[in-house]
Amino acid sequence: MALVVHKYGGTSMGSIDRIKNVARRVAKWHDAGYQVVVVPSAMAGETNRLIGLAREIMPEPDQRELDMVTSTGEQVSIGLLSMALLQLGKEAVSFTGWQVPVKTDTSHTKARIQSIDEARIRENLDKGKIVIIAGFQGISDAGNITTLGRGGSDTSAVAMAAALKAAECLIYTDVDGVYTTDPRVVTDAKRLKKITFEEMLEMASLGSKVLQTRSVELAGNYHVPTRVLSSLTDPDIPLEEESRSGTLITFEEENTDMEQTVISGIAFSRDEAKITVLGVPDRPGVAFQILGAIADANIEVDMIIQNQSVGGKTDFTFTVPRPDYNRAMDLLNNQVKAEVGATDIIGDAKVSKVSAIGIGMRSHVGVASRMFGTLFEEGINILMISTSEIKISVIIDEKYMELAVRALHKAFELEKM
Amino acid sequence: MALVVHKYGGTSMGSIDRIKNVARRVAKWHDAGYQVVVVPSAMAGETNRLIGLAREIMPEPDQRELDMVTSTGEQVSIGLLSMALLQLGKEAVSFTGWQVPVKTDTSHTKARIQSIDEARIRENLDKGKIVIIAGFQGISDAGNITTLGRGGSDTSAVAMAAALKAAECLIYTDVDGVYTTDPRVVTDAKRLKKITFEEMLEMASLGSKVLQTRSVELAGNYHVPTRVLSSLTDPDIPLEEESRSGTLITFEEENTDMEQTVISGIAFSRDEAKITVLGVPDRPGVAFQILGAIADANIEVDMIIQNQSVGGKTDFTFTVPRPDYNRAMDLLNNQVKAEVGATDIIGDAKVSKVSAIGIGMRSHVGVASRMFGTLFEEGINILMISTSEIKISVIIDEKYMELAVRALHKAFELEKM
Repeated sequence: MALVVHKYGGTSMGSIDRIKNVARRVAKWHDAGYQVVVVPSAMAGETNRLIGLAREIMPEPDQRELDMVTSTGEQVSIGLLSMALLQLGKEAVSFTGWQVPVKTDTSHTKARIQSIDEARIRENLDKGKIVIIAGFQGISDAGNITTLGRGGSDTSAVAMAAALKAAECLIYTDVDGVYTTDPRVVTDAKRLKKITFEEMLEMASLGSKVLQTRSVELAGNYHVPTRVLSSLTDPDIPLEEESRSGTLITFEEENTDMEQTVISGIAFSRDEAKITVLGVPDRPGVAFQILGAIADANIEVDMIIQNQSVGGKTDFTFTVPRPDYNRAMDLLNNQVKAEVGATDIIGDAKVSKVSAIGIGMRSHVGVASRMFGTLFEEGINILMISTSEIKISVIIDEKYMELAVRALHKAFELEKM
Repeated sequence: MALVVHKYGGTSMGSIDRIKNVARRVAKWHDAGYQVVVVPSAMAGETNRLIGLAREIMPEPDQRELDMVTSTGEQVSIGLLSMALLQLGKEAVSFTGWQVPVKTDTSHTKARIQSIDEARIRENLDKGKIVIIAGFQGISDAGNITTLGRGGSDTSAVAMAAALKAAECLIYTDVDGVYTTDPRVVTDAKRLKKITFEEMLEMASLGSKVLQTRSVELAGNYHVPTRVLSSLTDPDIPLEEESRSGTLITFEEENTDMEQTVISGIAFSRDEAKITVLGVPDRPGVAFQILGAIADANIEVDMIIQNQSVGGKTDFTFTVPRPDYNRAMDLLNNQVKAEVGATDIIGDAKVSKVSAIGIGMRSHVGVASRMFGTLFEEGINILMISTSEIKISVIIDEKYMELAVRALHKAFELEKM
């Protein structure tokens, strides 16, 4: 009997009626003969409410005690969902993270899963029960409750699917899959039926909010077939139809398409800022001096470019999230500039990043030239370029972002997907 | 170093500001050199909110899953209170019931505590930490979360104090102690500085809402000195003053007063109803036939009186809570009357119970006659009488209830306490 793991996000669990819909959907899979493990998130807004209470008491909440408080959101969800299934006449039982147990390290509020004991889950599945597991949480060796951080329920679900060697991990969410780009920008964006995990990883880290990056990594490491699909459809649609909907994350070696798609999607991130440190002496340790100071201030750095030096001096350019731009500039001007002996610091807080992603790019020359040519034809100046094996990202003026996304979507014929 | 257990009710934990006040009060005790274990309830209204969610999904919620849901209320409280103490610069740590562990039987929603492992608590107290324990909850042998039922946090606190052999268990609540009677009925009602546990037990079971009956029994069985006092005073009042406030529950053998008070208080319960089954054949099993049917319908029976039979027939009278009166009458008329061969069923849903309670009554004759005489002087007819070693209860017409309470309070000179 095939085993599947279902994960439902906070919106899907957001009201009593929605919880009842989740139960109907789960029951449908169980009726069809599947063993089903369900990982629900806290009801929408609940985690924020609990964090709000904590911050009113302790502006920088103690991390262990914060986990004690926030882990209750998922605990309420599993009990309610279990009741909704029992009310439908199904046998169901819920377990918290510590009851499984889901063992994690001791990093409160951002713990990593170390192991999942499947015995108690298997025992109940074998009795014909639907098993509901609290996502987002675990227990440390010292017996403290830990949480996995924001979006951790995705990670819990994929880890659960890996531990149980599930046939598929279905991530039910408020979108119906992964698109070639944001449909709000390109109206004829298409839903991808499949995406490789490497592409999904780039999509996730480039700002697509569909899946948490860590859960995609985990799916890749353990080869968990993971499907992103909508929880907002009628829960009673035929299972045949539902099980083919959404977007399935696959693994390259399984992909036997003769005609490998070159580009799978155009991702973008509007709120970027770029900073250039000019006239830096080209000696060892300079990059560390500049970026170390930025990292110490908890500012994330994304693209980094250093040009060939001329006359022993070079320019060093990188991007930061726009909200951190002013803080980064102050830090560089007041501290780093003198330390590294730079001639000037210049920046631009109105830039955006546009990326073309595709596993097929590995074996196809000409993707970069088609991308740059398209932008040239539209009169868009490229300010920075960064490439990986399956991705090309450019930084451009913010005002051209939508234009660039639409032009690239068309140039790579993504509307025909 | 003396160890004390503090218990705070839902009202005391009802808002962020109140939680901060609780923390200041606890910190004051810790500053004075006490080891402090704190058992807070869920924030006021939270348990009802959670039960409401459950009932929307499952009108008669599965008991195991309901415990999963409702136990989160106290878990949030302990985390927040721990943070409030940490914010004050105190070392504090919180534990759920299963983390202690507090072992219970498997009766979900009304579990009984079987044992408390004190090791983890002691270890943290010995490190100088304030230890916060979730009340109302425990864990069964099978590893399921259980709850102790309404008011269970009182029971948790007293059990904790017993296990840790605490010097005192302080129950902080929204009243400032136990009174000779309800001050809303008798304006010169006096707060009792002490009350024996037997008297407190009668008070609790007679409707005084100050302490849950089970927690009083537990205090009695384990001789836990338990004090009921107000959480609404300024948290910074001198500890000397606070530690003498409220009402201390004592044990008879410790009571060395030469002049034992005869009566400690007048308790009352307005919403009673009495039912008489007339002309019942006086044969074995009849009482069981009548009361068994009532008990099967989950109706609680309080006072029971059966008169001497005359001519092989007797009358059987008992009281039930007024909200159950109609249901009980229907049951008796439609089912029991024919079964037992009674001639008629009569009832009165407008009666109240008034009780005089006092451990001193054991050694003083004349308490009953003074009570009945006082009621006679006021022209109040006594409908039923029931006595125990330390209590005399009468059922009277509801409209005389306040008059009876005031007259008895004065007759036993309770205003001079």
